[in-house]
Amino acid sequence: MKITVSQDKLAKALNIVSKVAMGAKATLPILSNVLIRADDKKVSLTTTNLDMAVVNYVPVIDAENGAVTVPARLLAEFVGNLPRGEKIKIEAEGAKVKISSGRYSSTINGTLADEFPELPELDEEKSVSYKMGIDEFKLGISEVIVAASGDTTRPALTGVYFNTADGVLYVAATDGYRLAERKLINKVEDQIMVIVPAATLQEVMRSITDDISEVELVFEENQVRFRLGETEITSKLIDGTFPDYRQLIPKDNDIQVTLDRSELLRITKMAAIFSRESSRAISCETDADKGIFSVSSIANEVGENKSEIEVAVDKSGVIKLDSRFLMDALNVLEEDNIVFSFSEKVAPVVLTNEKSTDYTHIVMTLNV
Amino acid sequence: MKITVSQDKLAKALNIVSKVAMGAKATLPILSNVLIRADDKKVSLTTTNLDMAVVNYVPVIDAENGAVTVPARLLAEFVGNLPRGEKIKIEAEGAKVKISSGRYSSTINGTLADEFPELPELDEEKSVSYKMGIDEFKLGISEVIVAASGDTTRPALTGVYFNTADGVLYVAATDGYRLAERKLINKVEDQIMVIVPAATLQEVMRSITDDISEVELVFEENQVRFRLGETEITSKLIDGTFPDYRQLIPKDNDIQVTLDRSELLRITKMAAIFSRESSRAISCETDADKGIFSVSSIANEVGENKSEIEVAVDKSGVIKLDSRFLMDALNVLEEDNIVFSFSEKVAPVVLTNEKSTDYTHIVMTLNV
Repeated sequence: MKITVSQDKLAKALNIVSKVAMGAKATLPILSNVLIRADDKKVSLTTTNLDMAVVNYVPVIDAENGAVTVPARLLAEFVGNLPRGEKIKIEAEGAKVKISSGRYSSTINGTLADEFPELPELDEEKSVSYKMGIDEFKLGISEVIVAASGDTTRPALTGVYFNTADGVLYVAATDGYRLAERKLINKVEDQIMVIVPAATLQEVMRSITDDISEVELVFEENQVRFRLGETEITSKLIDGTFPDYRQLIPKDNDIQVTLDRSELLRITKMAAIFSRESSRAISCETDADKGIFSVSSIANEVGENKSEIEVAVDKSGVIKLDSRFLMDALNVLEEDNIVFSFSEKVAPVVLTNEKSTDYTHIVMTLNV
Repeated sequence: MKITVSQDKLAKALNIVSKVAMGAKATLPILSNVLIRADDKKVSLTTTNLDMAVVNYVPVIDAENGAVTVPARLLAEFVGNLPRGEKIKIEAEGAKVKISSGRYSSTINGTLADEFPELPELDEEKSVSYKMGIDEFKLGISEVIVAASGDTTRPALTGVYFNTADGVLYVAATDGYRLAERKLINKVEDQIMVIVPAATLQEVMRSITDDISEVELVFEENQVRFRLGETEITSKLIDGTFPDYRQLIPKDNDIQVTLDRSELLRITKMAAIFSRESSRAISCETDADKGIFSVSSIANEVGENKSEIEVAVDKSGVIKLDSRFLMDALNVLEEDNIVFSFSEKVAPVVLTNEKSTDYTHIVMTLNV
């Protein structure tokens, strides 16, 4: 293999693919390598952690076919330090890889390409695919991924549930304590119900560069592929059943206030400072007589805190919440004003934007 | 005690004083508190870790005398989240401290002021003091502090040595592997030879806000005080003897090259990537015939690296250096071009700026 590429293109590609390799398990050292393959003047860089594979196609100045693998982090750091935009030559002789650019040269001890794990094939003929604008995709994923679980003993909750209902594609995630759902695409024909690992979506989000305007989502029976310009991320789906979550969203919370999002976030943060020693519990209360919404917390050791916001509210009530979950929700809600509704019956709090109804976030109340 | 202050002034003061309290040892919990004292309409905030004390004077709108201590981090976070520029009232009743601002209020369980450690008195009559511009101070300290040691078994090396010679005030630091010296003030009358803890200087550097234009250094027998606008940092000096360092600076290194600083930093970084497994050793070499300065490294497992710079040089030679020490030096040298001189006899490398002679950095060579 012998290729000539420009430094900025190679550095950008390595930046996208190398993170998966850098997080690879030490049990299979070749996973920390990047596979460089030149095939018909097309050069691809590939990394995988066996659950997912990232491929980036790099425009080349010149290429002779062949393939080799080299430590991804080492190559990314070396190329990242070379002068911007210079030509870089990469030549493999067996597993020895010579990389040179002007007066800079390195020889890296790589590994033969045939030792690299087989990459999953995805049969696009048998798949369902959607295209959508990158901004809506980023917004939708970031708004639900926050509610996904980190607990690997319940695999289905560590993913984001892509599901269609009445011709709409929704994404949803829950960790059992809170749940977020977002309309992703309004009119779809094919039906799907699959769980995409949150880790895959984080990698997809991280790989979105400024020049990307569209994403293609390709779902196959057990796999999903995200196509972002010259980058393809292919991942296993999570094998499991996502909870029937729609029934969990309360329809009849009887106390409802419209609040300035950043002001509610501010007073939640202040109450959170005092709730660290009391399982992060804060109280949210409405006082219909005084026209006040308040957030308070008490920590026996430390002290106590109370902040008020004037609101229009016709019913008094109080519930307790985990301050972190409320802050997480407020950080992903996007409008200036949000609607906060609750019931003193044992029902979750519902948070939505004031105007748009595309996004719903619910948080379980605490009984402390 | 009862004071009224503006949020931005209080938040700024807490930001300056609270770090010392946040790093306090858990063995004496009151050290994580800030002492708030109102005395004749002047309000001071004080924190200490017993080695050093930081005091900041806050302009007040109104004050009734008294004093109390409260957890510094808690107060800083609470005040930091209040709306910018609003009035804040702080009232102490015994150790209960009520802090309120408009519709926000907190009660913090503090500690009585008389439990706070006695602060060292510094007799300014018996002291030597210097004033200097803040920019030269920052530059001088940052250029030498990088060479100070973190090894507390040799306390004298964990500080910066302020010493006068021929009417010039110098600062110097060494960890036994490298040494940095800088002229700090050109014409001084009093003579001093004291070692200031690097930790104190880091705190001083951190406390320099944009509105500070001058620093006053006040040295007493066992203490030093840095006065920065409304902030005073008082610290013990290190009791020990600093090495007679001037004799360590080679005067007759016979191989000398002038190099582009950022290019040398670039190629040192590239060599460092390959030197991680070989005690960070890199080779620096001059070739008088080819007119080349090169940096190279070899890692048996990983591979090897070599980069060249064209230079005017009249003698060939090679030495080995710790790549991190060379990068540290290049990061604090300030001119575009630097002078790198060495000798193949066992002598340290000397690094200076090309034009200014106020700063000298030497790095021991490796024998690997």
